[in-house]
Amino acid sequence: MTEPNPVRRRRGRGARERILAAATELFTAQGINATGMDQLSTVAGVSKRTLYVHFPSKDELVQAYLQSLEDDLLPAPASPDRPAPGPREQLLAIFDGQPPDPSAPLRGCPFLNVSVEMPDPGHPAHRLAAEHKREFARRLTAIARQAGIPDPETLGEQLALLFDGAAARATALNSTHTGPCARSIAETLIDAAFARGGPVASP
Amino acid sequence: MTEPNPVRRRRGRGARERILAAATELFTAQGINATGMDQLSTVAGVSKRTLYVHFPSKDELVQAYLQSLEDDLLPAPASPDRPAPGPREQLLAIFDGQPPDPSAPLRGCPFLNVSVEMPDPGHPAHRLAAEHKREFARRLTAIARQAGIPDPETLGEQLALLFDGAAARATALNSTHTGPCARSIAETLIDAAFARGGPVASP
Repeated sequence: MTEPNPVRRRRGRGARERILAAATELFTAQGINATGMDQLSTVAGVSKRTLYVHFPSKDELVQAYLQSLEDDLLPAPASPDRPAPGPREQLLAIFDGQPPDPSAPLRGCPFLNVSVEMPDPGHPAHRLAAEHKREFARRLTAIARQAGIPDPETLGEQLALLFDGAAARATALNSTHTGPCARSIAETLIDAAFARGGPVASP
Repeated sequence: MTEPNPVRRRRGRGARERILAAATELFTAQGINATGMDQLSTVAGVSKRTLYVHFPSKDELVQAYLQSLEDDLLPAPASPDRPAPGPREQLLAIFDGQPPDPSAPLRGCPFLNVSVEMPDPGHPAHRLAAEHKREFARRLTAIARQAGIPDPETLGEQLALLFDGAAARATALNSTHTGPCARSIAETLIDAAFARGGPVASP
């Protein structure tokens, strides 16, 4: 292994980052199938050759795009920088996303959108989306379990479904009202679950 | 106005129906953006010329495709052929769709899918999808209002969001488990709404 030329390495990283930024911008604004490699290389400011060096196929770019979003879009575990709030707040935090850009159409969840644009469940991008959606529910289940809520799997799956309903309906209606609607249902479910499992539960 | 030749009229109607059937098949299996007019004319068994006589643009075909689905996918009002069940059953009936074809991927709701594939909220197909989604909630609201449920708009919007969550998550996970999950949340919400508004409501 030789130490790569630092200038080249920096330039190389820059190109990959610019391509991913262009992919995020264009896939969000237009959808994946409506975005071609020509436009991607133009918007990223790289040659087609450089684009294909980093991403030999569009499918590989789509996968890297999804992986780059993954961490931001999963319920985050507590960390030293981010002490955990109570479990109720942790569960409800999925409905408190960043305020959207008012000048752009709402685009809901990129993982749901990929599963619509790539209908084949065996497609690598569709499989990544499905795995993300399962992991999303698993993290909610883990929070619910740690809080002593009975049947945490059911609550995790219910909250994930509410999140997806808010995202899909926001896209269709281009409206931010769906988040608070889903959140209010989630509050009802969480409070009922705590009432069943908590120290003040009635038989 | 002259009476059209009945043979020609029958043949004309047949072509339009075959084109719409091909569009439904291909849009469902592949998505809209992945389906071209060439393939549509081949699968429908019509010439490109005939295809364009019936649908001068793909956008017009997409709109006709959505309109052909509309009636089947909205909560249906009662009719002499279909006496109304109780309001609880009417509201929950949205979760009792036809069993899906086990040999094909699940594709959720075509109106949600269109809104993902055509991200521009001003696109005619996206607007049709948004209007369908609003009408879906309005019909549920009307059933809830007639049943004397307080704040029927909120319940209508909540149930529509649950329907969309089940559809979107079914597409991502290729799983039929999301319908029963959404239905169980809906039962909780409906029963709570009846308890608040019904004759046995407590203050």
